[in-house]
Amino acid sequence: MNESHSSSNRVAGEVGLRVRYAETDQMGVVYYSNFLVWFEIGRVELLRQLGFDYKTMEVDDDCFIPVVEVNCRYKSPARYDDELIVETRVTGVRGAVLKFRYRVVRVGDRQLLAEGETVHVVTDHTLTKRALPEKYAQALKGA
Amino acid sequence: MNESHSSSNRVAGEVGLRVRYAETDQMGVVYYSNFLVWFEIGRVELLRQLGFDYKTMEVDDDCFIPVVEVNCRYKSPARYDDELIVETRVTGVRGAVLKFRYRVVRVGDRQLLAEGETVHVVTDHTLTKRALPEKYAQALKGA
Amino acid sequence: MNESHSSSNRVAGEVGLRVRYAETDQMGVVYYSNFLVWFEIGRVELLRQLGFDYKTMEVDDDCFIPVVEVNCRYKSPARYDDELIVETRVTGVRGAVLKFRYRVVRVGDRQLLAEGETVHVVTDHTLTKRALPEKYAQALKGA
Amino acid sequence: MNESHSSSNRVAGEVGLRVRYAETDQMGVVYYSNFLVWFEIGRVELLRQLGFDYKTMEVDDDCFIPVVEVNCRYKSPARYDDELIVETRVTGVRGAVLKFRYRVVRVGDRQLLAEGETVHVVTDHTLTKRALPEKYAQALKGA
Repeated sequence: MNESHSSSNRVAGEVGLRVRYAETDQMGVVYYSNFLVWFEIGRVELLRQLGFDYKTMEVDDDCFIPVVEVNCRYKSPARYDDELIVETRVTGVRGAVLKFRYRVVRVGDRQLLAEGETVHVVTDHTLTKRALPEKYAQALKGA
Repeated sequence: MNESHSSSNRVAGEVGLRVRYAETDQMGVVYYSNFLVWFEIGRVELLRQLGFDYKTMEVDDDCFIPVVEVNCRYKSPARYDDELIVETRVTGVRGAVLKFRYRVVRVGDRQLLAEGETVHVVTDHTLTKRALPEKYAQALKGA
Repeated sequence: MNESHSSSNRVAGEVGLRVRYAETDQMGVVYYSNFLVWFEIGRVELLRQLGFDYKTMEVDDDCFIPVVEVNCRYKSPARYDDELIVETRVTGVRGAVLKFRYRVVRVGDRQLLAEGETVHVVTDHTLTKRALPEKYAQALKGA
Repeated sequence: MNESHSSSNRVAGEVGLRVRYAETDQMGVVYYSNFLVWFEIGRVELLRQLGFDYKTMEVDDDCFIPVVEVNCRYKSPARYDDELIVETRVTGVRGAVLKFRYRVVRVGDRQLLAEGETVHVVTDHTLTKRALPEKYAQALKGA
């Protein structure tokens, strides 16, 4: 579904959301930290589209993926009530390190609002580094 | 320190805070849900002034106080960079039920911005109702 | 669609949402102030279902509806990744005062998680009280 | 005041804050987007220490500094009730582009929790690029 904006043939998760009033600030646009919340929504939906969900990863497999690095470039402001799509791709699966890339696009005019990356380390609930269970590694590498 | 705005002789916790940009919305004032975050800051500081802290309550005593009801009346808008004081009082300690009352006041002009109440039930970490440990009950009743 | 949980024949707006990781706290449940953000989502969707949108109200009609009072009763915790429905009803339209009622229900088991009310005063962008434009008053009274 | 952790002789703004319950997530640590909110608090306090405040910049000088890029590396989790210091430095003032660098340190053990950078473009309230007023440029270059 991403042919129009990508030459990659990796699977990309897409999820829609609408800008909340609480996410705006007095500049009349979305406050910058909210894009990180949206990145996470994209990440979780990508996992869901790969056949498993993050909630189960935490509870059943004692597998957490805290963020160790994030980068975001803001291209154009998001505004109240805008309908957006977050596109998420897996860009790295190596040992206990995962990488994702995101694009936030406004539905109405296909304007790119922001893009970014996150790096994660796989841990257990005590935040101690651990290997990614094989079933997840397979699915993510396939993506 | 509260003589000027209260005839009560109960102890009131006071804590100062400054409005964050992230807390404003596109109306140019603080978004309404943030007052509940501030209520909690007031509640925790009142506990601290009574000699114990909420972090320890959770970790050492398996004692949580989730909110079961909140009410807030907004009197005047809070604006970016305003310096505020949250005044918190204990208004009820009965069995596993606690009640607190809050006033949010702007430092510059002593304007009352909002006031409200919360009702809490004491639980363990599974959110099962339990009795408030005696040391906390004593301190709160004394307040 | 609301026959099962209401004897009222007023129109109720419904909107679905999914709990975000950012909305949870260390108790493992949704932090209490987020329900107020959801109430607003419900309110805006109800307006949309009545044929107009809040964004236009602000921009074209200089008509804002800040909250002057909110009440929320928490019945059962919302958890990460829960799918929820916010049901919103108009419960009062009198002069410059509007009232809404909300129920937050989990889709999976139809569990009621919280219910609440908000009271609003209609203002212009300077937060000065003003009359609700007739087209909105008609639509809301009809609801 | 920064001799212990910096060989630079630039002025660094420091501001203290305490982790709020609302900032934690179900992993039991601070949710990652909150560090960006703290970066902004550090940025504003640095400006204040340089003799002017951001509120005035917006209102009197029609001068906004929206973020166009942010990067954050998470070193160690921040936890509920931790007392933190945000150290902020100006790292670039060139035309309409400003850069800041941040370190978030826990007071108790001087542990570095996160560090990051933001890049800003100076705009007016319509988000159109404009020059930074000379008084601000001087102060920031001096820092």
